[in-house]
Parts: sequence; structure tokens; C-alpha cells
Amino acid sequence: MTAQPEQTGKIIISVDAMGGDSGPGVVIAGIAKSARKNPDIGFLLHGPEDVLRKLVAKRRVLEGRVVFRDCPDVVTMQDKPSQVVRNGKNTSMWSALDSVRNGAAHGAVSCGNTGALMALSMMRLRKLPGVNRPAIAILWPSRNPQGFNVMLDVGADVRADARDLLQYALMGASYARNGMALSRPRIGLLNVGTEEHKGRAELKEAHGLISDFADRANFDFVGFVEGSDIPGDKADVIVTDGFTGNVAIKTGEGTASLIGDLLREAFSYSPLSRLASVLAITSLQRLKKRIDPRRVNGGVFLGLNGTVVKSHGGADATGVSAAVKLAFTLAQSGFAEKLAARVASTAELEQDAAQSAPQIEK
Amino acid sequence: MTAQPEQTGKIIISVDAMGGDSGPGVVIAGIAKSARKNPDIGFLLHGPEDVLRKLVAKRRVLEGRVVFRDCPDVVTMQDKPSQVVRNGKNTSMWSALDSVRNGAAHGAVSCGNTGALMALSMMRLRKLPGVNRPAIAILWPSRNPQGFNVMLDVGADVRADARDLLQYALMGASYARNGMALSRPRIGLLNVGTEEHKGRAELKEAHGLISDFADRANFDFVGFVEGSDIPGDKADVIVTDGFTGNVAIKTGEGTASLIGDLLREAFSYSPLSRLASVLAITSLQRLKKRIDPRRVNGGVFLGLNGTVVKSHGGADATGVSAAVKLAFTLAQSGFAEKLAARVASTAELEQDAAQSAPQIEK
Repeated sequence: MTAQPEQTGKIIISVDAMGGDSGPGVVIAGIAKSARKNPDIGFLLHGPEDVLRKLVAKRRVLEGRVVFRDCPDVVTMQDKPSQVVRNGKNTSMWSALDSVRNGAAHGAVSCGNTGALMALSMMRLRKLPGVNRPAIAILWPSRNPQGFNVMLDVGADVRADARDLLQYALMGASYARNGMALSRPRIGLLNVGTEEHKGRAELKEAHGLISDFADRANFDFVGFVEGSDIPGDKADVIVTDGFTGNVAIKTGEGTASLIGDLLREAFSYSPLSRLASVLAITSLQRLKKRIDPRRVNGGVFLGLNGTVVKSHGGADATGVSAAVKLAFTLAQSGFAEKLAARVASTAELEQDAAQSAPQIEK
Repeated sequence: MTAQPEQTGKIIISVDAMGGDSGPGVVIAGIAKSARKNPDIGFLLHGPEDVLRKLVAKRRVLEGRVVFRDCPDVVTMQDKPSQVVRNGKNTSMWSALDSVRNGAAHGAVSCGNTGALMALSMMRLRKLPGVNRPAIAILWPSRNPQGFNVMLDVGADVRADARDLLQYALMGASYARNGMALSRPRIGLLNVGTEEHKGRAELKEAHGLISDFADRANFDFVGFVEGSDIPGDKADVIVTDGFTGNVAIKTGEGTASLIGDLLREAFSYSPLSRLASVLAITSLQRLKKRIDPRRVNGGVFLGLNGTVVKSHGGADATGVSAAVKLAFTLAQSGFAEKLAARVASTAELEQDAAQSAPQIEK
């Protein structure tokens, strides 16, 4: 459907160089890292061209791999999404999304304001036919062999009804197949208990809907799961509304960060414990790497005509590079097109079901 | 209001000996631990007397400190709350609550089925006048000087409207004052962001209600907080609905447990890391103690005529002893009476506000 990107043979990632907490220097260090590791990526870089040119010139690996899109304005973390939608035409964020919209890039990455990025993405890329609410999906460290679980929605929308949750299940399954190479992902629906009578009314309804679609959509539905299963191994994809999902991941992050600090404190307590920390340093670094949020940096916006990856605002070069890699992987697998097809076919099936249901009742 | 407990001079805790995952042996080991540490506790022990007598006889420290209440039936983890309310008259759980109801004990502790315990507590103890939904409050390891934050509701009810959230704030503040000796606790309302325009409608309304009551109810309202603030130091009490709260704490627990396992794995990886773990063992144990959930075992049911502490079903003797200590501390501070007075006066204030509001409008 969309026009082919300009630089043939390469996957082109559209990068919003502005709006992150640490400025464009870190973003360019990040794309340089990606460029070094992966010869098949090219970049469209959005922001004030004079500033960006100087930063890119310092990185030899980026020579000939970056096309600039000059834009004077920046979306800040304080800007309200509604303002950005009205007045953001000259921002780097708007421009980065438009490159996906007009087919110049295979996907976009931004470290900027999440609310503004979601609002602009919905406006510029539009929702996929059949999708009511787009969702943000992230990866969370887990006990599963793949090391991570997909979780969605983590904050695109504070509400979700049963049909939205069904769509999250379909989109999450598609993401797990294309982003994590799981052929038949296991989907869990987040609740306060695993018994079928527990939880809110919309969850019981969603339980039925997701069960009905599991076979046709090629995933396993493991039913209700609990908060403890987000880092667990019962499901690969955890489906919930954006309010609950957002609170859950921030609670998990905060708890992990508290433990990390207390661990550092414990290891600096006495000469003996300081010696122990020196001896254990490679083990601890291995652990840190395993659960390092920078390695899985990137919330993917699902349900739009095009791939958008939201990198953490405070991401460093490693984090930006991880977000770029995620956008690359999804682009390479043709994720956006597959997801669109999946959602469209489900919408048809649902329509069929809705039309035939009254006849069954008679 | 309530009659004075039987054994004068002592605080009497009513203990449901049955229904925990590990049987009555662990419960009795737990109360023995409490008895050893605290000469001012006496126990009412509920369950099959012949079984319990034998277990108690083995613990010399319990001599003369336990009164038995023979009951043949046990509430299992599989029993539905509605069944227990109908047919549970001869269970140890029912009997344990009735000792609080009739004034024989100052508070109750049970390791049994949470849903059944809440349903029975509401039926036997009744809600405090002015309380719509009781809540379960727990303590969560945090960066605050007191080491823990209060969080509620973590699962009494999956719904909460703005008025319920106001009551949770009042009850949580009262709990922090009496259970943690914080004279002016800081209350935070859980949301997906700290800006006032964020979140669901009932949260914006609750924000206004809680602000209005902060001064009269002697707490500070810090406004909206995020999941990362549950283990943080911005607030002492985190207020949320029981669905979100339940998912959040289980996510935090699951993440902490994953990190613990990966840490063990990291330390057993090589001879060097195993040596390091030996050197670091006291530091690691200090850390473990700091965040050990057994030390803060006990969800307190708030909003009832009487104190009920729900111990974790899988609690060991240390965990049971912590739950008993919590019930003791609350009983000693006269928490139940203070909370009742606080809620009643607030209900009056609210009524005044509702009656006077139209006049102000004119």
C-alpha cells in the first residue's frame, strides 16, 4: 500500500533526534552504534539540520547513511498532546512520523513525550481499520526461555473494554510472532486471580472473546493471569488496560531499582563485602545485563498504519540503539503489513459472528 | 462499646489455627515465637481442640497463655466466599472472628482464604458506620525512613469510586499513624502520571475530595503518584482501587522474586562468584532481611468493627509471628476505636458539606 522508501536495499528508520532528556547528542551516538552493528540500516534524521550535521559529522560510521530533514521546532516533555496536534507541524516529532506516513521510512523512533507521540501518531498514521484503541507494548524480563514477555497496553489509553482487550491479544500475539519469533505465543489476560469468576465484568467478557479467537488467530489462550505472571513463565503476552499496565510496570521498575540500590548499599557496607563485590563483579554485571531495561528499550505503538517505537526519554546511546534495532526487526519481518491483515480478518470474523448470532438465537 | 476481653492486663489475639498452606503446626510455632518475645500477649486459638492441644503442649512458652475454642470445620483455599458465609458457622475462621465480635479478643489473625475471610469479616464484624467498601492495607518496602509504605486497597474489592478512595485515604492515614507512628502521614493517589489532568474521571474527583479533607484529617496530600512511588519516598500511604493495587503488588513481588533467583544464579556461576557469595553472605542477608516479605506479613482489613490481620497463606513461623505482632500493635494503640471515630467524624463533615453546598451556591 505505502510507497517504497528511498534508499533501496536498506531498511530506513526515521529518527526524531530531539525531545529526549539528554538532547540530540545521545540519539546520534545511539544511531551510530546501530549503524556500526548493522550495515542494512539507513536513517532519516529529524531536527535542526545545522545542529544535527555537526554531531553526525563526528561519527565516521554514519557517513552516507543519514538523510536530514530540517525542522526548527521541538516537542518538550511539558507540551500537552492536544497542543502538539494543533501546532506541532514544524516539530521533529511530526516530521519523523510523516516520513513513515509517506513511505520514505519503514518505521519511526522517538525519545520524546509519550502522550504527544501517541496523539500525533494517531493523527498522522491513522488507526488500522478495525482497531478502536491503539496500544503500547513493551518487553518485560521474565522466566520464559526468550527472556522477556510482551505486555500491553502500558499507557496508550486508560480505558479498555472487552473488544479492545481482544484486539490487544491479537496485536500482542502478532508482535510476539514477529518481534520475538514465537510461532504460537501464549496469551494471558491480567486479573486479580486465575479463577474464572474473579475480576471486573469486562474481563469476564474479554475472557470469552479471546478464547473464541485463539485458534483462528493462531495463539494459545492461558486464561487469567496475575501480576506475578508478568515476569513469569505462564504466558508470553500479558494483556491488560493501559491504566493497570502502566501502574504495574512502574511498580516493577521501582521495586527493581530499590533492590539494585539496596544491593549496592549491602556491598559497600564492610571491607569484606566490598571485596566480595569485586570478586562478584562479572556475575553481577551478567545479572544486570539480563534485566537491563536499556536492552529492551522501546515501547511499540500497535494498531496504527506504520511502526512507531517510543524509546525511554532518559535513554542513553545503548537504549536508543536498542529501540532502533527493534524498529528494524519489525520492519524487516513486515510486521506492520501482517498486523494490518490480521486485524482486518478478525474484524470480518467478528462481523460474521455478530450477524450470525441472532439467527442462532432464534 | 465492645465488652472487655477475658484475660485482663493482656492483649488477647484471636488466632485461626487452620486454613494456612502448611497446617496448624506452623501457626502454633508462630504464636510461640510471639509469646517468647512479648509477655503481654494472650491467645484464643480456634480449630480442632484435640489436634491443637497436642501441638501447644510441645511449646512450654505457651503454657497458660492459650485458651482453646474447639471448632470441627476448616475453610479451604478452594471454598467460595459465598458458601463460607452460608455454611461456615462451625469453621475456625468464623469462630476466630466471633471472638473479636463479642469482645473476647482485641484482634484476629488468619492465614486462610482471603476472599472468605473478607466476606466473613464483613458479615460478622460489620462495616464501620460511614464506610462503603472496606479495604486491605499492606506494607511495602520503600525508600522512606520508616522502611515501608502503606498501600491500600490491594484486593478487598475490584471497584472503588471517588468517595471510596477518600475513605481509603482516611483509613490509610489512620493506619500509618497507629501502626507506623507517623504523626502526619503523606498520602498519594495512584495514577498513570503526576499531572492533574491525567487518569480516569473518578481519580480527578477523588483528587479534589482528598485535598479538601487533608487538613481536617491531619495528613498531607501529595497528589497523584505513579507505580514507581509505591517503593519510593514521595508518600507514606498509596491509595488505589483493589484491582490496580492487587496487580501492582503482585507485579512487584514477582519482579523481586525473579531478581532474587537470577542473583542466586549469578553467584553460583563460577568458582570465583561462589567465593564472592560466601564473602558477601552477611551483606546479602542484611539486604534480604530489609525486603523480606515475612517481616511485614499481614494485610490489615480496614473499615470494620474490629481488627483483622490476614497473614499470607504460605507464611512460616516468622511470618505468623509478624502478623500477630501487627495485630498486637494495632490493638495496643486503640486503632480500631480511633479509626471508627475518624470515619464517623468525616461522614458528618461530608454530610455538612453536602447540606451547606447548595446554600453557598445561591
